[in-house]
Amino acid sequence: MSDLPQRVSIHEEGPREGFQIEPGPITTAQKIALVDALSETGLKQIQIASFVNPKRVPGWADAEAVVTGFHPRADIRYTALWLNEKGLERAIALADRLALRGVISLCASEPFLRRNQNRGIEENIRVQHAQIELFKAQSIPVDVIAIMAVFGCNFAGDISLATVLDTVVQGMEIAAAHDLAIKTLSLADTMAWATPQSIKRVVGAIRERWPELRLNLHLHDTRGLGIANAYAGLEMGVNSFDSSVAGLGGCPFAGHKGAAGNVCTEDLVFMCEEMGIATGVDVEKLIAAAQLAEKIVGHPLPGSVMRGGTLGKYRHARA
Amino acid sequence: MSDLPQRVSIHEEGPREGFQIEPGPITTAQKIALVDALSETGLKQIQIASFVNPKRVPGWADAEAVVTGFHPRADIRYTALWLNEKGLERAIALADRLALRGVISLCASEPFLRRNQNRGIEENIRVQHAQIELFKAQSIPVDVIAIMAVFGCNFAGDISLATVLDTVVQGMEIAAAHDLAIKTLSLADTMAWATPQSIKRVVGAIRERWPELRLNLHLHDTRGLGIANAYAGLEMGVNSFDSSVAGLGGCPFAGHKGAAGNVCTEDLVFMCEEMGIATGVDVEKLIAAAQLAEKIVGHPLPGSVMRGGTLGKYRHARA
Repeated sequence: MSDLPQRVSIHEEGPREGFQIEPGPITTAQKIALVDALSETGLKQIQIASFVNPKRVPGWADAEAVVTGFHPRADIRYTALWLNEKGLERAIALADRLALRGVISLCASEPFLRRNQNRGIEENIRVQHAQIELFKAQSIPVDVIAIMAVFGCNFAGDISLATVLDTVVQGMEIAAAHDLAIKTLSLADTMAWATPQSIKRVVGAIRERWPELRLNLHLHDTRGLGIANAYAGLEMGVNSFDSSVAGLGGCPFAGHKGAAGNVCTEDLVFMCEEMGIATGVDVEKLIAAAQLAEKIVGHPLPGSVMRGGTLGKYRHARA
Repeated sequence: MSDLPQRVSIHEEGPREGFQIEPGPITTAQKIALVDALSETGLKQIQIASFVNPKRVPGWADAEAVVTGFHPRADIRYTALWLNEKGLERAIALADRLALRGVISLCASEPFLRRNQNRGIEENIRVQHAQIELFKAQSIPVDVIAIMAVFGCNFAGDISLATVLDTVVQGMEIAAAHDLAIKTLSLADTMAWATPQSIKRVVGAIRERWPELRLNLHLHDTRGLGIANAYAGLEMGVNSFDSSVAGLGGCPFAGHKGAAGNVCTEDLVFMCEEMGIATGVDVEKLIAAAQLAEKIVGHPLPGSVMRGGTLGKYRHARA
């Protein structure tokens, strides 16, 4: 009936996505408390900070303090985000506490690229080449291509499948120029245009052409389809997802219209586990972390399972 | 790739589900205003009142006033809910303003049936036979079997497929005893246990055994899987859904833990229309009704598209 995977990997992005958008103020200690709580859940990859311009993103002005202050576990990859060379240098300075991984970062919409990063496609390609040189100089592996705005764009409208495939080719050419072997292709529904149908169409076309690539989905939930889109990905065999505890990263109830967070981690984990797909994550501990996140931001977050609860207690009551 | 239907029917249950659970007070005029707003959206079936014990459900003590006060459109079926003979009599008294339809109402979980309606399976079968006699005496058509707790139960745990199929047989036997032709089978995930996988398993087994039945899904969203479950239903060819504007019917932010509403109508309509499945509903008007619902209840409701907006404006800007 479908290609549901047996297990999935989850890249938790709640701290990074959430604290960049929440009005706060949120203390460094609170950020560290959430990262440490997430470390106890079984998650194996957690994005814990963003090295971006503190004038543009004041919520991450304390990125260094969070990264030096949290309590790492040896079995977890702690990742960080940067958008330019300056950010990468800040991350490299803390390389002993972070799992740095080079990404070839592309966008299927030039208007969005201009708006978000103030550059066009050609200039972005040059930037990617330059960043790869930096990654190489620091012995940071580069095996991921990530593409933004794959399923549609508020500034370019619908994105054709041909444009998406062209963008993957663009990334493959950049990689080839540096003799890099790409293992993972991450597709982002940056502005929440995807439907389960478009997920299947795009993932299907990419799997057919690049069957060797592992696919990752980064799904925003602005229009309520995040978890359905994740399910469509699972049905196509996708076994890697970005997600955000409690749905951190944008809260419709705080006026962040059009900026809802990633699909909610504990809802995704709940769905997977209920369908027999192993996540390695303890959903009850994740719910505790989600409740902590809500306490820290001081308003309701979009997660459902953190309120509705899991089913284990009803089953145990009968066992 | 799937059996996605070309069009779906939506049974809007927001007013009935919402006003029975909201703490209020909500005036009769406000209830009427929401029903009238929904009448302008293109919806063809709206459940507008509940004839239940006003001592148990004070929010619907004014059911008669709502039904006599709203402004019906000739092309819409306005439905109501009742749980016993007394409620049915109240509905019959207003039959000129309602589309009364007899339902054989069963439950796949006896513990839930006892808790919800204070009767066991055998007694419920007797009640159904008695109600059919009443329907017949009033010339009310009976062509629906509705089954609660199909996908799991907080009091019985997981529900086996065999139990579900037995319950359908139970309903078919009741119908046969009265020479009734059943057209529609409605499956309710009353306590939000379903996953896309269990939706597919149960719907698949029922379609195989009773291919002539039209299937309807009634999906609660307590654990955030409502829209993914609806998508799984669509993939199995299900073309009829109950849903609730703005997700009315339980609000996690008002402490109605474990009682979240049905899948949100405008989110469902948005998903369908974006996938090319016709709903006949104007999603922008539905969003306006959802915003009215939120204003009436006085707190945020769970709908997403009402906050995130549709995609039309971005496409139009480029046309």
